[in-house]
Amino acid sequence: MLVVLAHPSLASLNHALARAAVAAAEAAGAAVALHDLYRDGFDPRLQAAEVDTSDFADELAAGYARDLLAADLLVVVHPVWFFQLPATLKGWVDRVVRQGVAFDLDAHGNVTGRLRTRSALVVTTGNASAAVEREVFGDPVTRFWRDVVLAPAGVGGVERLAFSPVRGSTDAARAAWLRQVGEAVGEAVEQL
Amino acid sequence: MLVVLAHPSLASLNHALARAAVAAAEAAGAAVALHDLYRDGFDPRLQAAEVDTSDFADELAAGYARDLLAADLLVVVHPVWFFQLPATLKGWVDRVVRQGVAFDLDAHGNVTGRLRTRSALVVTTGNASAAVEREVFGDPVTRFWRDVVLAPAGVGGVERLAFSPVRGSTDAARAAWLRQVGEAVGEAVEQL
Repeated sequence: MLVVLAHPSLASLNHALARAAVAAAEAAGAAVALHDLYRDGFDPRLQAAEVDTSDFADELAAGYARDLLAADLLVVVHPVWFFQLPATLKGWVDRVVRQGVAFDLDAHGNVTGRLRTRSALVVTTGNASAAVEREVFGDPVTRFWRDVVLAPAGVGGVERLAFSPVRGSTDAARAAWLRQVGEAVGEAVEQL
Repeated sequence: MLVVLAHPSLASLNHALARAAVAAAEAAGAAVALHDLYRDGFDPRLQAAEVDTSDFADELAAGYARDLLAADLLVVVHPVWFFQLPATLKGWVDRVVRQGVAFDLDAHGNVTGRLRTRSALVVTTGNASAAVEREVFGDPVTRFWRDVVLAPAGVGGVERLAFSPVRGSTDAARAAWLRQVGEAVGEAVEQL
């Protein structure tokens, strides 16, 4: 299992959620890789040498891709900024999940996924309600992960856990969110 | 006028489009600032010290914000990657267009824009058709710029020029795109 995390603060709820995911997977007997993009110093800027190639401009991104290609289960944890991913995580998509690495695209526009990942769990934190995200802005985070990134890479089962509002949330609410992530990861590992 | 550009290759169509925008604005008598995010070495990762503050972790981002707050007209030029912005440009949004800098958000959820920018032109390059972008994926690039980023910052008039497919495009098609950008910028400057 691979957990990908993008938040600048070690003390953040996002880090706690990622730790809960790792702990639940390990308790269920899974081997886990954690890619903490900020802490690892991942550079989100797709480089000129990477455009239209499957080369990597640095070893960190190459290793990230190896772990992604090996993952049976993917968990991503991130805050919602501007109803989208943080730039750091969008760069993980741009550089690691790109054509020639995570999927192939032929001259006729046919897409073939390269991942062996069976399912994905997208865990997000934010302040806008799920209704606003869906009804006002057209559900951009779920659509991005499910339709734009993961379906072309060959990952069908995408579940989203959207926790909001974080601002003003009680300790009890946060504890419940952590439990919910642990349970979802435990179930996903069992279904592998 | 401010032009913001995010593409890793100096030889790209994106750079040519940005140069055409700058030339047209200067020909119309406007003063132009060009922020070439890749070339300037802009770091798209929102830093912990920037979360929930209006501080900037580096002087480049602070200067970018000063120029944005002074701009009467904004032109952004970028490729469409995964039906969204390149991470580098998403980071410009995360760090420079953020709450406390480009807009205020009160405790009741009311948003007040801080920009004096009268209008914005979003120029994109891609390979998917406008119909696929709109009908299959819900028009995510236009909605992001117009509804999520610029409306809250107080910028009402957002125009999009979406050039595709770039792959296999002829010299004549590219020349026409460059002319189209020049004309659109010239008109926008005249309307200020």
